[in-house]
Amino acid sequence: MQRPLSNEEQDWVERTLEGLSLRELIGQTMQDHAGRLPFKGDDEAALRRYLEQYPVGSFFIGGEVIQKAAGKAGDYRSWAGMLQSISRLPLLFSGDLEFGAGSAVRSLTAFPPLLALAAADDEDMAYEYGKYTAMEGRAAGFTWALAPGTDLLLNWMNPVITTRCLGDDARRAARLSAALMRGMQDYGMAACAKHFPGDGVDYRDQHIITTINSLSEEEWFSTYGEVSRTIIDQGVMSYMTGHIALPWIEGGAGSTKPVPATVSERITTELLRERMGFDGVVLSDALDMGGFLAWGDYEKRIIDCFNCGTDVLLWPGVRYFAVMEQAVADGRVSRERLSASVRRILEMKARLGVHSAGAAGEDGAALPLLDDKLRPELDREVRQFSRALAGRCLTLVRNRTGQLPLNPQTVRRVLVIMLNKVTEGRRYERMNLFVEQLKARGLQVDILDEFEPLTTLRQWELSGVHWDAAFAPYFLPLHGMMNTARPVGEAAKAIWAMQHAETVTPIGVSFASPYLLQDIPFLDTLVNAYSLHEDTVELTVQALFGEIQFQGSSPVHADTQGEDYGSRGIRMS
Amino acid sequence: MQRPLSNEEQDWVERTLEGLSLRELIGQTMQDHAGRLPFKGDDEAALRRYLEQYPVGSFFIGGEVIQKAAGKAGDYRSWAGMLQSISRLPLLFSGDLEFGAGSAVRSLTAFPPLLALAAADDEDMAYEYGKYTAMEGRAAGFTWALAPGTDLLLNWMNPVITTRCLGDDARRAARLSAALMRGMQDYGMAACAKHFPGDGVDYRDQHIITTINSLSEEEWFSTYGEVSRTIIDQGVMSYMTGHIALPWIEGGAGSTKPVPATVSERITTELLRERMGFDGVVLSDALDMGGFLAWGDYEKRIIDCFNCGTDVLLWPGVRYFAVMEQAVADGRVSRERLSASVRRILEMKARLGVHSAGAAGEDGAALPLLDDKLRPELDREVRQFSRALAGRCLTLVRNRTGQLPLNPQTVRRVLVIMLNKVTEGRRYERMNLFVEQLKARGLQVDILDEFEPLTTLRQWELSGVHWDAAFAPYFLPLHGMMNTARPVGEAAKAIWAMQHAETVTPIGVSFASPYLLQDIPFLDTLVNAYSLHEDTVELTVQALFGEIQFQGSSPVHADTQGEDYGSRGIRMS
Repeated sequence: MQRPLSNEEQDWVERTLEGLSLRELIGQTMQDHAGRLPFKGDDEAALRRYLEQYPVGSFFIGGEVIQKAAGKAGDYRSWAGMLQSISRLPLLFSGDLEFGAGSAVRSLTAFPPLLALAAADDEDMAYEYGKYTAMEGRAAGFTWALAPGTDLLLNWMNPVITTRCLGDDARRAARLSAALMRGMQDYGMAACAKHFPGDGVDYRDQHIITTINSLSEEEWFSTYGEVSRTIIDQGVMSYMTGHIALPWIEGGAGSTKPVPATVSERITTELLRERMGFDGVVLSDALDMGGFLAWGDYEKRIIDCFNCGTDVLLWPGVRYFAVMEQAVADGRVSRERLSASVRRILEMKARLGVHSAGAAGEDGAALPLLDDKLRPELDREVRQFSRALAGRCLTLVRNRTGQLPLNPQTVRRVLVIMLNKVTEGRRYERMNLFVEQLKARGLQVDILDEFEPLTTLRQWELSGVHWDAAFAPYFLPLHGMMNTARPVGEAAKAIWAMQHAETVTPIGVSFASPYLLQDIPFLDTLVNAYSLHEDTVELTVQALFGEIQFQGSSPVHADTQGEDYGSRGIRMS
Repeated sequence: MQRPLSNEEQDWVERTLEGLSLRELIGQTMQDHAGRLPFKGDDEAALRRYLEQYPVGSFFIGGEVIQKAAGKAGDYRSWAGMLQSISRLPLLFSGDLEFGAGSAVRSLTAFPPLLALAAADDEDMAYEYGKYTAMEGRAAGFTWALAPGTDLLLNWMNPVITTRCLGDDARRAARLSAALMRGMQDYGMAACAKHFPGDGVDYRDQHIITTINSLSEEEWFSTYGEVSRTIIDQGVMSYMTGHIALPWIEGGAGSTKPVPATVSERITTELLRERMGFDGVVLSDALDMGGFLAWGDYEKRIIDCFNCGTDVLLWPGVRYFAVMEQAVADGRVSRERLSASVRRILEMKARLGVHSAGAAGEDGAALPLLDDKLRPELDREVRQFSRALAGRCLTLVRNRTGQLPLNPQTVRRVLVIMLNKVTEGRRYERMNLFVEQLKARGLQVDILDEFEPLTTLRQWELSGVHWDAAFAPYFLPLHGMMNTARPVGEAAKAIWAMQHAETVTPIGVSFASPYLLQDIPFLDTLVNAYSLHEDTVELTVQALFGEIQFQGSSPVHADTQGEDYGSRGIRMS
């Protein structure tokens, strides 16, 4: 449970709540997107007019996980400060700080993803993961991390969670996500567990359509329920509901339409608020996602979302004000419901101390920045942590023939088969990091990244080329809207092509999905590295050559060993 | 069972067999690929030298299903005739005549695919499907169709069978495939049931890796076993084994490697030959497929493939001769086994009457060609059949709100959302056929085929555009090596984008996978048309506007109605 408010904080909440106009009450219940303002973001006069007209309660800043990290810490900090000084009510600034503050802000530290943390399976590291995210994040103006992920990768085909969660084991995920959350909140950053009621069961992506968590009630309580209960009991300040349905509680057999949590009173209020006992802020997932759009027209979607028990709606756009004013006026939304949400939001602001920001908007709790980073010794500490985690996560999933470690004395010429260098016509140049690391060792590197004709590899062999080792690195960007995490298209062709080799056995190295063996079961050797995080790629190469150990243990059932592959999704009628 | 040979035929078989050299025996057991000769195909002198050195038993000609139909009927016929006159032994000419002879030869008639035939569910039509394929095919020089498909689409995620099979119901598939086979064989074309032990259970593609048919023994006998038994009992002349493992019989629990039928004596000899009683020719699937390559090096693969009970190896390349000669010499392959296979092959040739081809190579059983087609009245008959089937297959999978049929009087302006116009950077211009048909009705057609920004549709609506109907056509080429039949990449983005429409409800029209509702469950209306076959597209538009009825019944469980979507592939640990 969250810590009780002090008297001073409680007073501020009640006093503030009393003084709010209807428009201000409504504004507290929406979160705006700094990247979507209808004018240049640093135009102070325009911002002032905007906030007068649209007194929103919080802003999302920085890059979205869905895209790339962007911008500089100092710029976000000044911008947040400027807005804080303009706004009559203290604002919160949120970000997709899922893998360190560097996953949203380019000048800060990007950590290996959550699945890497799960492979390291170290609670102290999880706490530090949260702590350093908070220190860097708050220095860059953030007060609210839309993290940690509390989803479970129960379906290996899930296209959106992949490396963004803590594996498939509920107890591990509960333990690590709670520690991460404590680290964040102890250092001044509100955490936001996501997503409720839990992603990772469906094979689809709620960016695209409403997805289904099809577990039974009993299964749900022993998995997602356990993670939720743990992180709520330990005081998480906010929880993001997903565009995810939970048929055991609503919209099950016989219904024609799934009911996502973001419009479901049974999920958001009865299950999350009442049964799980969550007393913090419920934030919806982004309302421009496909999984929300199918629910109805804008007005229906918005009002159902608010009325089901959501405290803050994520990116509804400023149309929200007019729709909500009308809905309050005609009784479709009650003032009591509105006040209850705003009280929770103000309580969160008070807990974070933003109610006492200085007049110039400066955040007393934020560490100073130097060249867009924390001060050197602290910055070094954060980056060392990031590298240490990279070293801890590397997982040797399969080493059937003892191919690893490679002998650095005898391996001189290597082949790299670029799985998914090209997908959907998009080239992923980051795969080159791996090649650069091999070249940096003085290795001669041949690259296969065109798979027509399929027999190129065999032609090379027949022409007399001999490799001492071959690697098949795999990468697919984190929820890049592919609707799959599997190797498709050119990557699938590459799997065909690589089997033409007769003189060398490729070593799989996944920098993305941990489930490569589902599609390439013939690999005798597989390393899971979870991301193209720079230190990770460097250390992966060191581990391949035996200079460091593989220390990670797989946080998912990555090696099916033949017992159940091929058997998914069958209908026996 | 197959018809007994006449005395004359039996004599020819025995006499021929006795006179064969070892090299000729070996040659009978391989099938060559006319498109892969190391010289120009019409160079008669080169062909003569080639056949002297490599006396192969059969050639594959025409386009592969995997690619496009190619070439002209007359050219194939003359080429086959020339080879027949050169070859000491009569040759067979095979082709991927899965959907009519036009699926391999551009100037002949392409039928709607097998799944369309299953939607029409008419045994007489199935017979005609086979009969017309044989008439056109034999006129173009073919004597051996690598068809019909006898697979079952039990797993909706299967990426390679999709519309190439007769649905998910074993009894329907048995009935229709046997009728089709009889039509073929009655008109002088050897049929080849494919694949044994049955594709459609795995989510993967044996072009890429060895796949698994993971049914239990009991399940297998009540599904694939039933189809096999039926078509064998009714006398199918050949059966293609796939690079598909069947763990209940071999390579189950505890083994690290699946054993594909193409190297499995237990599947090919014990199950197919002995238990199912198949006495025709066993042809392997193509040996350059990924699903075969992982088995071992070339020599191991080839010898295991022959020794497991395969009569004819598909596209092993001419290295095959040397490898087999050596294997016979050192006893790894027995002469008896070789003779037994060759006897079956010669028996098939005798049954087809190719042993009595004229000295000039002309095929007395082939109908005459005129302008690369059958004579006009027969050509018309075949094309009418193709169009009739197109009309019979169209399936109204869902019409929840009674949107269909559209009113031709009031629908004037329509929107087309191009799902999968672009996939893997490849543009599928054939989707334009559908648009052309709409325009040909005088409709004003707006097209959405760029999905960035996602909100384009809403912007158009807000700018005042009003559509009377919207269509979301879907296409993905038949096993185009995508490793998935689902909408991925740009198509997935399109699903997100289409939900931004608030004034119109898109009508789904799948020209590919029948399972679109798995990924786009919010569609209130879905038509399955199974292919972009030209008549089909034209008739689809007529059916949308109520000018003809939807007569097809879905040959798979295409509408999950919410009862089980989202629940696939979950691991509860």
